[in-house]
Amino acid sequence: MDRTIFLVSDRTGITIETLAHTLLTQFDAVHHKSISLPFIDTPEKARAARQRIDAIAKADGVPPVIFSSLIDSRLRDEIRACGGIFLDLFEIYLPVMEKELAIRSRQAVGLAHAIDDISRYESRVEAINFTLSHDDGADTRKLKNAEVILLGVSRSGKTPTCLYLALQFGVRAANYPLTEEDFPADGLPPVLERHRRVLFGLSIAPERLQQIRQQRRADSAYASLARCRQEVQWAERLYSAYRIPFLNTTTMSIEEIAAAIMHRTGLRRRPA
Amino acid sequence: MDRTIFLVSDRTGITIETLAHTLLTQFDAVHHKSISLPFIDTPEKARAARQRIDAIAKADGVPPVIFSSLIDSRLRDEIRACGGIFLDLFEIYLPVMEKELAIRSRQAVGLAHAIDDISRYESRVEAINFTLSHDDGADTRKLKNAEVILLGVSRSGKTPTCLYLALQFGVRAANYPLTEEDFPADGLPPVLERHRRVLFGLSIAPERLQQIRQQRRADSAYASLARCRQEVQWAERLYSAYRIPFLNTTTMSIEEIAAAIMHRTGLRRRPA
Repeated sequence: MDRTIFLVSDRTGITIETLAHTLLTQFDAVHHKSISLPFIDTPEKARAARQRIDAIAKADGVPPVIFSSLIDSRLRDEIRACGGIFLDLFEIYLPVMEKELAIRSRQAVGLAHAIDDISRYESRVEAINFTLSHDDGADTRKLKNAEVILLGVSRSGKTPTCLYLALQFGVRAANYPLTEEDFPADGLPPVLERHRRVLFGLSIAPERLQQIRQQRRADSAYASLARCRQEVQWAERLYSAYRIPFLNTTTMSIEEIAAAIMHRTGLRRRPA
Repeated sequence: MDRTIFLVSDRTGITIETLAHTLLTQFDAVHHKSISLPFIDTPEKARAARQRIDAIAKADGVPPVIFSSLIDSRLRDEIRACGGIFLDLFEIYLPVMEKELAIRSRQAVGLAHAIDDISRYESRVEAINFTLSHDDGADTRKLKNAEVILLGVSRSGKTPTCLYLALQFGVRAANYPLTEEDFPADGLPPVLERHRRVLFGLSIAPERLQQIRQQRRADSAYASLARCRQEVQWAERLYSAYRIPFLNTTTMSIEEIAAAIMHRTGLRRRPA
Protein backbone atom coordinates (compact mmCIF):
# COMPACT_ATOMS: atom_id res chain seq x y z
CA MET A 1 0.00 0.00 0.00
CA ASP A 2 1.78 3.13 -1.12
CA ARG A 3 0.12 5.93 0.74
CA THR A 4 1.69 9.34 1.11
CA ILE A 5 1.78 10.63 4.66
CA PHE A 6 1.25 14.37 5.14
CA LEU A 7 2.33 16.13 8.32
CA VAL A 8 0.41 19.38 8.52
CA SER A 9 0.93 21.92 11.29
CA ASP A 10 0.31 25.59 12.00
CA ARG A 11 3.75 25.95 13.52
CA THR A 12 6.99 23.99 13.39
CA GLY A 13 5.51 20.53 12.91
CA ILE A 14 7.84 19.02 15.50
CA THR A 15 5.07 17.54 17.62
CA ILE A 16 3.17 16.00 14.75
CA GLU A 17 6.31 14.56 13.13
CA THR A 18 7.31 12.85 16.34
CA LEU A 19 3.82 11.55 16.89
CA ALA A 20 3.31 10.25 13.35
CA HIS A 21 6.68 8.53 13.41
CA THR A 22 5.78 6.72 16.63
CA LEU A 23 2.37 5.66 15.36
CA LEU A 24 3.56 4.54 11.93
CA THR A 25 6.16 2.21 13.43
CA GLN A 26 3.12 0.17 14.49
CA PHE A 27 2.10 -0.43 10.89
CA ASP A 28 4.42 -2.58 8.83
CA ALA A 29 2.33 -2.49 5.75
CA VAL A 30 2.12 1.24 5.18
CA HIS A 31 5.18 1.86 3.06
CA HIS A 32 5.19 5.55 2.80
CA LYS A 33 6.88 8.70 1.83
CA SER A 34 6.11 11.60 4.09
CA ILE A 35 5.74 15.26 3.26
CA SER A 36 5.89 17.97 5.93
CA LEU A 37 3.73 21.05 5.55
CA PRO A 38 4.60 23.30 8.51
CA PHE A 39 3.50 26.90 9.20
CA ILE A 40 0.03 26.43 7.67
CA ASP A 41 -1.48 29.35 9.56
CA THR A 42 -3.76 31.18 7.12
CA PRO A 43 -6.74 30.10 4.99
CA GLU A 44 -4.66 30.80 1.85
CA LYS A 45 -1.87 28.50 2.97
CA ALA A 46 -4.41 25.84 3.95
CA ARG A 47 -5.96 26.04 0.49
CA ALA A 48 -2.57 25.71 -1.19
CA ALA A 49 -1.72 22.77 1.08
CA ARG A 50 -4.98 21.09 0.21
CA GLN A 51 -4.34 21.51 -3.51
CA ARG A 52 -0.94 19.90 -3.09
CA ILE A 53 -2.45 17.00 -1.13
CA ASP A 54 -5.18 16.57 -3.76
CA ALA A 55 -2.67 16.45 -6.59
CA ILE A 56 -0.53 13.82 -4.92
CA ALA A 57 -3.54 11.75 -3.86
CA LYS A 58 -4.67 11.70 -7.48
CA ALA A 59 -1.23 10.63 -8.68
CA ASP A 60 -1.01 7.94 -5.97
CA GLY A 61 -4.47 6.58 -6.73
CA VAL A 62 -4.99 5.92 -3.01
CA PRO A 63 -6.09 8.35 -0.28
CA PRO A 64 -3.20 9.80 1.74
CA VAL A 65 -2.98 9.79 5.54
CA ILE A 66 -2.90 13.26 7.04
CA PHE A 67 -1.56 13.77 10.53
CA SER A 68 -2.25 17.31 11.55
CA SER A 69 -2.03 19.62 14.52
CA LEU A 70 -4.13 22.61 13.52
CA ILE A 71 -5.76 24.47 16.34
CA ASP A 72 -7.95 26.66 14.10
CA SER A 73 -10.98 24.62 13.09
CA ARG A 74 -11.40 26.51 9.78
CA LEU A 75 -7.96 25.41 8.69
CA ARG A 76 -8.74 21.87 9.77
CA ASP A 77 -11.93 21.86 7.73
CA GLU A 78 -10.08 23.04 4.65
CA ILE A 79 -7.51 20.25 4.90
CA ARG A 80 -10.07 17.63 5.84
CA ALA A 81 -11.97 18.34 2.63
CA CYS A 82 -9.24 16.65 0.59
CA GLY A 83 -10.86 13.32 1.35
CA GLY A 84 -7.80 11.56 2.73
CA ILE A 85 -7.62 9.89 6.12
CA PHE A 86 -7.57 12.90 8.41
CA LEU A 87 -6.24 12.58 11.97
CA ASP A 88 -5.93 15.85 13.84
CA LEU A 89 -4.23 15.81 17.22
CA PHE A 90 -6.39 18.48 18.80
CA GLU A 91 -9.60 17.11 17.37
CA ILE A 92 -8.77 13.74 18.86
CA TYR A 93 -7.48 14.81 22.27
CA LEU A 94 -9.09 18.11 23.23
CA PRO A 95 -12.70 16.93 23.54
CA VAL A 96 -11.63 14.09 25.84
CA MET A 97 -9.48 16.42 27.91
CA GLU A 98 -12.15 19.10 28.14
CA LYS A 99 -14.67 16.56 29.31
CA GLU A 100 -12.40 14.89 31.85
CA LEU A 101 -10.95 18.12 33.19
CA ALA A 102 -14.29 19.90 32.99
CA ILE A 103 -12.68 23.04 31.58
CA ARG A 104 -12.52 24.59 28.12
CA SER A 105 -9.36 24.72 26.07
CA ARG A 106 -7.97 27.98 24.72
CA GLN A 107 -7.86 27.03 21.04
CA ALA A 108 -4.86 29.30 20.66
CA VAL A 109 -2.29 28.65 17.98
CA GLY A 110 1.32 27.70 18.31
CA LEU A 111 2.23 27.85 21.92
CA ALA A 112 4.17 24.65 22.26
CA HIS A 113 7.58 25.55 20.93
CA ALA A 114 7.42 29.30 21.33
CA ILE A 115 9.99 30.79 23.62
CA ASP A 116 7.45 30.98 26.40
CA ASP A 117 10.14 30.65 28.94
CA ILE A 118 13.22 32.80 28.60
CA SER A 119 14.95 31.09 31.49
CA ARG A 120 14.60 27.75 29.68
CA TYR A 121 16.22 29.25 26.56
CA GLU A 122 19.04 30.64 28.62
CA SER A 123 19.74 27.49 30.54
CA ARG A 124 19.84 25.53 27.29
CA VAL A 125 22.27 27.98 25.71
CA GLU A 126 24.40 27.99 28.83
CA ALA A 127 24.45 24.17 28.83
CA ILE A 128 25.40 24.10 25.14
CA ASN A 129 28.28 26.48 25.73
CA PHE A 130 29.45 24.41 28.67
CA THR A 131 29.27 21.23 26.63
CA LEU A 132 31.13 22.75 23.69
CA SER A 133 33.96 23.93 25.89
CA HIS A 134 34.20 20.54 27.63
CA ASP A 135 34.05 18.34 24.56
CA ASP A 136 36.59 15.59 24.22
CA GLY A 137 38.43 16.25 27.46
CA ALA A 138 38.99 19.95 26.77
CA ASP A 139 39.25 22.41 29.65
CA THR A 140 39.28 19.89 32.46
CA ARG A 141 39.69 22.63 35.06
CA LYS A 142 36.01 23.42 35.20
CA LEU A 143 34.76 19.85 35.22
CA LYS A 144 33.46 20.46 38.72
CA ASN A 145 30.52 22.32 37.16
CA ALA A 146 29.51 19.32 35.05
CA GLU A 147 26.28 17.57 35.96
CA VAL A 148 27.43 14.50 34.11
CA ILE A 149 30.75 13.48 32.52
CA LEU A 150 30.49 10.83 29.82
CA LEU A 151 33.39 8.44 29.38
CA GLY A 152 33.99 6.24 26.40
CA VAL A 153 36.43 5.20 23.71
CA SER A 154 36.73 7.19 20.51
CA ARG A 155 33.49 7.04 18.45
CA SER A 156 31.30 5.57 21.15
CA GLY A 157 28.80 8.43 20.84
CA LYS A 158 29.93 10.82 23.59
CA THR A 159 29.74 14.09 21.68
CA PRO A 160 26.28 13.75 20.09
CA THR A 161 24.87 12.49 23.37
CA CYS A 162 26.33 15.42 25.33
CA LEU A 163 24.95 17.90 22.83
CA TYR A 164 21.54 16.30 22.95
CA LEU A 165 21.56 16.40 26.76
CA ALA A 166 22.42 20.10 26.64
CA LEU A 167 19.96 21.06 23.89
CA GLN A 168 17.04 18.98 25.00
CA PHE A 169 17.36 18.93 28.76
CA GLY A 170 19.57 21.93 29.57
CA VAL A 171 22.05 19.62 31.30
CA ARG A 172 25.72 20.61 31.56
CA ALA A 173 27.32 17.50 30.06
CA ALA A 174 31.06 17.11 29.60
CA ASN A 175 32.86 14.19 28.04
CA TYR A 176 36.24 12.62 28.45
CA PRO A 177 37.73 10.25 25.89
CA LEU A 178 39.33 7.04 27.06
CA THR A 179 42.43 6.66 24.93
CA GLU A 180 45.21 4.12 24.75
CA GLU A 181 47.27 6.26 27.08
CA ASP A 182 44.68 5.93 29.83
CA PHE A 183 44.36 2.21 29.56
CA PRO A 184 47.61 0.46 30.40
CA ALA A 185 47.53 2.24 33.74
CA ASP A 186 45.14 0.46 36.03
CA GLY A 187 43.43 3.41 37.60
CA LEU A 188 41.02 6.14 36.71
CA PRO A 189 42.60 9.10 34.87
CA PRO A 190 43.63 11.34 37.79
CA VAL A 191 41.68 14.36 36.51
CA LEU A 192 38.46 12.34 36.91
CA GLU A 193 39.17 11.17 40.44
CA ARG A 194 37.44 14.14 42.06
CA HIS A 195 34.36 13.80 39.86
CA ARG A 196 33.51 10.14 40.37
CA ARG A 197 30.01 10.97 41.49
CA VAL A 198 29.00 12.28 38.04
CA LEU A 199 30.81 9.82 35.76
CA PHE A 200 28.79 7.78 33.29
CA GLY A 201 30.27 5.30 30.84
CA LEU A 202 29.33 4.48 27.25
CA SER A 203 30.10 1.11 25.78
CA ILE A 204 29.43 -0.38 22.36
CA ALA A 205 29.77 -3.70 20.55
CA PRO A 206 33.29 -3.94 19.07
CA GLU A 207 31.86 -4.94 15.68
CA ARG A 208 29.73 -1.80 15.53
CA LEU A 209 32.62 0.35 16.71
CA GLN A 210 34.79 -1.07 13.97
CA GLN A 211 32.14 -0.27 11.38
CA ILE A 212 31.98 3.37 12.58
CA ARG A 213 35.73 3.81 12.76
CA GLN A 214 36.15 2.19 9.38
CA GLN A 215 34.14 5.05 7.88
CA ARG A 216 36.46 7.53 9.47
CA ARG A 217 39.87 5.99 8.84
CA ALA A 218 39.46 2.99 6.61
CA ASP A 219 41.82 0.06 7.18
CA SER A 220 43.79 1.79 9.93
CA ALA A 221 44.99 0.09 13.11
CA TYR A 222 42.49 2.41 14.83
CA ALA A 223 39.63 0.76 12.93
CA SER A 224 40.81 -2.84 13.32
CA LEU A 225 38.48 -5.23 15.10
CA ALA A 226 41.29 -6.36 17.42
CA ARG A 227 41.90 -2.81 18.58
CA CYS A 228 38.18 -2.09 18.99
CA ARG A 229 37.77 -5.26 21.08
CA GLN A 230 40.72 -4.37 23.24
CA GLU A 231 39.57 -0.82 23.92
CA VAL A 232 35.99 -1.81 24.71
CA GLN A 233 37.22 -4.49 27.09
CA TRP A 234 39.49 -2.02 28.85
CA ALA A 235 36.72 0.55 29.13
CA GLU A 236 34.23 -1.91 30.60
CA ARG A 237 36.83 -3.16 33.04
CA LEU A 238 37.42 0.42 34.18
CA TYR A 239 33.67 1.01 34.62
CA SER A 240 33.34 -2.12 36.73
CA ALA A 241 36.41 -1.42 38.84
CA TYR A 242 35.18 2.04 39.76
CA ARG A 243 31.48 1.21 39.82
CA ILE A 244 30.75 3.69 37.07
CA PRO A 245 27.24 3.10 35.69
CA PHE A 246 27.34 2.44 31.97
CA LEU A 247 25.19 1.75 28.94
CA ASN A 248 25.73 -0.35 25.87
CA THR A 249 24.71 2.00 23.07
CA THR A 250 25.04 -0.40 20.13
CA THR A 251 21.39 -0.44 19.14
CA MET A 252 20.32 2.88 20.63
CA SER A 253 19.60 6.19 18.96
CA ILE A 254 20.99 9.45 20.37
CA GLU A 255 17.59 10.25 21.91
CA GLU A 256 17.45 6.89 23.61
CA ILE A 257 20.95 7.12 25.03
CA ALA A 258 20.23 10.59 26.41
CA ALA A 259 16.87 9.59 27.90
CA ALA A 260 18.41 6.50 29.49
CA ILE A 261 21.18 8.60 31.07
CA MET A 262 18.63 11.09 32.46
CA HIS A 263 16.68 8.18 33.88
CA ARG A 264 19.60 6.29 35.39
CA THR A 265 21.31 9.32 36.91
CA GLY A 266 18.13 10.96 38.16
CA LEU A 267 19.10 14.23 36.47
CA ARG A 268 16.24 16.66 35.92
CA ARG A 269 15.44 18.86 32.95
CA ARG A 270 16.37 22.49 33.71
CA PRO A 271 14.41 24.44 34.57
CA ALA A 272 12.20 21.63 35.84
CA MET B 1 -6.51 23.24 39.91
CA ASP B 2 -3.28 21.62 41.00
CA ARG B 3 -3.15 18.36 39.16
CA THR B 4 0.04 16.40 38.73
CA ILE B 5 0.75 15.34 35.18
CA PHE B 6 2.38 11.94 34.68
CA LEU B 7 4.19 11.06 31.47
CA VAL B 8 4.40 7.29 31.29
CA SER B 9 6.17 5.45 28.50
CA ASP B 10 7.68 2.05 27.78
CA ARG B 11 10.70 3.67 26.16
CA THR B 12 12.31 7.10 26.24
CA GLY B 13 9.16 9.13 26.76
CA ILE B 14 10.19 11.68 24.14
CA THR B 15 7.01 11.35 22.09
CA ILE B 16 4.64 11.59 25.01
CA GLU B 17 6.50 14.54 26.57
CA THR B 18 6.29 16.50 23.35
CA LEU B 19 2.65 15.63 22.89
CA ALA B 20 1.60 16.45 26.45
CA HIS B 21 3.44 19.75 26.32
CA THR B 22 1.59 20.72 23.13
CA LEU B 23 -1.80 19.72 24.52
CA LEU B 24 -1.34 21.33 27.91
CA THR B 25 -0.52 24.71 26.38
CA GLN B 26 -4.21 24.71 25.39
CA PHE B 27 -5.32 24.66 29.03
CA ASP B 28 -4.53 27.75 31.04
CA ALA B 29 -6.15 26.54 34.17
CA VAL B 30 -4.20 23.35 34.73
CA HIS B 31 -1.28 24.57 36.76
CA HIS B 32 0.80 21.48 36.95
CA LYS B 33 3.99 19.85 37.86
CA SER B 34 4.90 16.96 35.62
CA ILE B 35 6.66 13.72 36.44
CA SER B 36 8.23 11.53 33.75
CA LEU B 37 8.16 7.77 34.17
CA PRO B 38 10.06 6.37 31.17
CA PHE B 39 11.14 2.78 30.48
CA ILE B 40 8.04 1.24 32.11
CA ASP B 41 8.36 -2.04 30.23
CA THR B 42 7.54 -4.83 32.70
CA PRO B 43 4.51 -5.59 34.90
CA GLU B 44 6.70 -4.99 37.98
CA LYS B 45 7.70 -1.52 36.84
CA ALA B 46 4.10 -0.75 35.94
CA ARG B 47 3.01 -1.76 39.42
CA ALA B 48 5.67 0.44 41.03
CA ALA B 49 4.68 3.33 38.75
CA ARG B 50 1.06 2.92 39.71
CA GLN B 51 1.92 2.95 43.42
CA ARG B 52 3.84 6.17 42.92
CA ILE B 53 0.94 7.73 41.03
CA ASP B 54 -1.52 6.60 43.72
CA ALA B 55 0.56 8.11 46.50
CA ILE B 56 0.83 11.47 44.78
CA ALA B 57 -2.86 11.50 43.81
CA LYS B 58 -3.72 10.93 47.44
CA ALA B 59 -1.45 13.76 48.59
CA ASP B 60 -2.81 16.09 45.88
CA GLY B 61 -6.42 15.30 46.73
CA VAL B 62 -7.32 15.54 43.02
CA PRO B 63 -6.93 12.88 40.31
CA PRO B 64 -3.78 13.29 38.22
CA VAL B 65 -3.69 13.38 34.42
CA ILE B 66 -1.72 10.53 32.89
CA PHE B 67 -0.41 10.83 29.38
CA SER B 68 0.96 7.50 28.34
CA SER B 69 2.37 5.69 25.35
CA LEU B 70 2.31 2.05 26.39
CA ILE B 71 1.93 -0.42 23.60
CA ASP B 72 1.38 -3.46 25.87
CA SER B 73 -2.26 -3.44 26.97
CA ARG B 74 -1.47 -5.24 30.26
CA LEU B 75 0.80 -2.38 31.29
CA ARG B 76 -1.84 0.12 30.25
CA ASP B 77 -4.45 -1.65 32.37
CA GLU B 78 -2.18 -1.59 35.39
CA ILE B 79 -1.61 2.17 35.11
CA ARG B 80 -5.23 2.90 34.25
CA ALA B 81 -6.33 1.28 37.50
CA CYS B 82 -4.94 4.23 39.47
CA GLY B 83 -8.17 6.08 38.76
CA GLY B 84 -6.62 9.24 37.32
CA ILE B 85 -7.49 10.71 33.94
CA PHE B 86 -5.83 8.22 31.63
CA LEU B 87 -4.98 9.20 28.05
CA ASP B 88 -2.95 6.64 26.15
CA LEU B 89 -1.64 7.60 22.73
CA PHE B 90 -1.99 4.16 21.18
CA GLU B 91 -5.38 3.51 22.69
CA ILE B 92 -6.62 6.77 21.22
CA TYR B 93 -5.02 6.57 17.78
CA LEU B 94 -4.56 2.93 16.82
CA PRO B 95 -8.22 1.91 16.60
CA VAL B 96 -8.96 4.84 14.29
CA MET B 97 -5.93 4.09 12.15
CA GLU B 98 -6.65 0.37 11.99
CA LYS B 99 -10.19 1.07 10.88
CA GLU B 100 -9.30 3.70 8.31
CA LEU B 101 -6.33 1.82 6.90
CA ALA B 102 -8.13 -1.52 7.18
CA ILE B 103 -5.00 -3.22 8.52
CA ARG B 104 -3.91 -4.41 11.95
CA SER B 105 -1.18 -2.72 13.93
CA ARG B 106 1.81 -4.63 15.25
CA GLN B 107 1.49 -3.76 18.93
CA ALA B 108 5.25 -4.00 19.22
CA VAL B 109 7.11 -1.99 21.83
CA GLY B 110 9.57 0.80 21.42
CA LEU B 111 10.30 1.18 17.78
CA ALA B 112 10.15 4.93 17.41
CA HIS B 113 13.49 6.09 18.67
CA ALA B 114 15.45 2.89 18.27
CA ILE B 115 18.36 3.07 15.91
CA ASP B 116 16.27 1.54 13.15
CA ASP B 117 18.29 3.29 10.57
CA ILE B 118 22.05 3.22 10.83
CA SER B 119 22.48 5.59 7.92
CA ARG B 120 20.37 8.18 9.77
CA TYR B 121 22.61 7.84 12.82
CA GLU B 122 25.67 8.27 10.70
CA SER B 123 24.46 11.27 8.78
CA ARG B 124 23.51 12.96 12.05
CA VAL B 125 26.92 12.29 13.56
CA GLU B 126 28.63 13.47 10.40
CA ALA B 127 26.54 16.65 10.41
CA ILE B 128 27.37 17.28 14.09
CA ASN B 129 31.07 16.91 13.42
CA PHE B 130 30.82 19.26 10.47
CA THR B 131 28.92 21.81 12.54
CA LEU B 132 31.38 21.61 15.42
CA SER B 133 34.35 22.20 13.15
CA HIS B 134 32.59 25.12 11.44
CA ASP B 135 31.31 26.89 14.50
CA ASP B 136 31.88 30.59 14.81
CA GLY B 137 33.70 31.05 11.53
CA ALA B 138 36.26 28.31 12.18
CA ASP B 139 37.80 26.40 9.29
CA THR B 140 36.35 28.47 6.47
CA ARG B 141 38.16 26.39 3.85
CA LYS B 142 35.55 23.69 3.81
CA LEU B 143 32.52 25.95 3.82
CA LYS B 144 31.69 24.69 0.35
CA ASN B 145 30.34 21.52 1.98
CA ALA B 146 27.88 23.45 4.12
CA GLU B 147 24.20 23.08 3.29
CA VAL B 148 23.48 26.29 5.13
CA ILE B 149 25.68 29.00 6.65
CA LEU B 150 24.04 31.08 9.37
CA LEU B 151 25.12 34.68 9.77
CA GLY B 152 24.45 36.87 12.74
CA VAL B 153 25.93 39.12 15.38
CA SER B 154 27.37 37.66 18.56
CA ARG B 155 24.64 35.99 20.71
CA SER B 156 21.97 35.96 18.05
CA GLY B 157 21.49 32.18 18.40
CA LYS B 158 23.70 30.81 15.62
CA THR B 159 25.43 28.01 17.52
CA PRO B 160 22.39 26.37 19.18
CA THR B 161 20.46 26.60 15.93
CA CYS B 162 23.27 24.97 13.93
CA LEU B 163 23.57 22.16 16.45
CA TYR B 164 19.85 21.58 16.41
CA LEU B 165 19.83 21.48 12.60
CA ALA B 166 22.62 18.90 12.69
CA LEU B 167 21.20 16.75 15.49
CA GLN B 168 17.58 16.83 14.46
CA PHE B 169 17.73 17.01 10.70
CA GLY B 170 21.23 15.76 9.82
CA VAL B 171 21.94 19.05 8.04
CA ARG B 172 25.53 20.29 7.68
CA ALA B 173 25.15 23.77 9.16
CA ALA B 174 28.04 26.20 9.53
CA ASN B 175 27.92 29.62 11.07
CA TYR B 176 29.83 32.83 10.61
CA PRO B 177 29.79 35.65 13.15
CA LEU B 178 29.29 39.21 11.94
CA THR B 179 31.69 41.28 14.01
CA GLU B 180 32.58 44.93 14.12
CA GLU B 181 35.44 44.27 11.73
CA ASP B 182 33.04 43.07 9.06
CA PHE B 183 30.68 45.98 9.33
CA PRO B 184 32.37 49.23 8.44
CA ALA B 185 33.24 47.68 5.08
CA ASP B 186 30.21 47.80 2.87
CA GLY B 187 30.42 44.39 1.31
CA LEU B 188 29.97 40.80 2.25
CA PRO B 189 32.96 39.25 4.06
CA PRO B 190 35.02 37.95 1.11
CA VAL B 191 35.13 34.37 2.41
CA LEU B 192 31.34 34.21 2.10
CA GLU B 193 31.19 35.56 -1.45
CA ARG B 194 31.38 32.12 -3.05
CA HIS B 195 28.69 30.70 -0.76
CA ARG B 196 25.92 33.24 -1.24
CA ARG B 197 23.47 30.57 -2.30
CA VAL B 198 23.45 28.97 1.17
CA LEU B 199 23.61 32.03 3.43
CA PHE B 200 20.85 32.62 5.95
CA GLY B 201 20.72 35.52 8.41
CA LEU B 202 19.57 35.70 12.00
CA SER B 203 18.35 38.94 13.47
CA ILE B 204 17.02 39.83 16.90
CA ALA B 205 15.48 42.79 18.73
CA PRO B 206 18.30 44.97 20.13
CA GLU B 207 16.63 45.02 23.56
CA ARG B 208 16.62 41.24 23.74
CA LEU B 209 20.20 41.07 22.49
CA GLN B 210 21.25 43.49 25.19
CA GLN B 211 19.57 41.34 27.81
CA ILE B 212 21.44 38.25 26.61
CA ARG B 213 24.81 39.99 26.34
CA GLN B 214 24.33 41.58 29.72
CA GLN B 215 24.27 38.10 31.24
CA ARG B 216 27.55 37.33 29.58
CA ARG B 217 29.51 40.53 30.16
CA ALA B 218 27.55 42.81 32.42
CA ASP B 219 27.84 46.55 31.80
CA SER B 220 30.40 46.21 29.00
CA ALA B 221 30.36 48.25 25.79
CA TYR B 222 29.57 44.91 24.12
CA ALA B 223 26.32 44.70 26.10
CA SER B 224 25.26 48.33 25.68
CA LEU B 225 21.96 48.99 23.97
CA ALA B 226 23.59 51.46 21.59
CA ARG B 227 26.08 48.87 20.41
CA CYS B 228 23.37 46.18 20.08
CA ARG B 229 21.22 48.56 18.01
CA GLN B 230 24.12 49.46 15.78
CA GLU B 231 25.14 45.86 15.12
CA VAL B 232 21.60 44.66 14.42
CA GLN B 233 21.07 47.56 12.02
CA TRP B 234 24.31 46.78 10.19
CA ALA B 235 23.44 43.10 9.97
CA GLU B 236 19.97 43.71 8.57
CA ARG B 237 21.37 46.18 6.07
CA LEU B 238 23.84 43.54 4.91
CA TYR B 239 21.06 40.93 4.54
CA SER B 240 18.99 43.32 2.46
CA ALA B 241 21.87 44.45 0.27
CA TYR B 242 22.77 40.86 -0.64
CA ARG B 243 19.23 39.48 -0.60
CA ILE B 244 20.09 37.06 2.15
CA PRO B 245 16.90 35.60 3.61
CA PHE B 246 16.67 36.23 7.33
CA LEU B 247 14.58 35.63 10.42
CA ASN B 248 13.92 37.70 13.48
CA THR B 249 14.45 35.20 16.29
CA THR B 250 13.45 37.40 19.24
CA THR B 251 10.41 35.40 20.31
CA MET B 252 11.36 32.03 18.82
CA SER B 253 12.65 28.90 20.49
CA ILE B 254 15.60 26.96 19.05
CA GLU B 255 13.20 24.39 17.59
CA GLU B 256 11.17 27.07 15.89
CA ILE B 257 14.17 28.83 14.39
CA ALA B 258 15.49 25.54 13.01
CA ALA B 259 12.11 24.48 11.62
CA ALA B 260 11.63 27.88 10.00
CA ILE B 261 15.06 27.67 8.34
CA MET B 262 14.31 24.18 7.01
CA HIS B 263 11.03 25.48 5.64
CA ARG B 264 12.37 28.67 4.06
CA THR B 265 15.45 27.10 2.50
CA GLY B 266 13.70 23.96 1.30
CA LEU B 267 16.38 21.81 2.96
CA ARG B 268 15.37 18.21 3.56
CA ARG B 269 16.00 15.97 6.53
CA ARG B 270 18.78 13.48 5.72
CA PRO B 271 18.22 10.74 4.90
CA ALA B 272 14.79 11.82 3.72
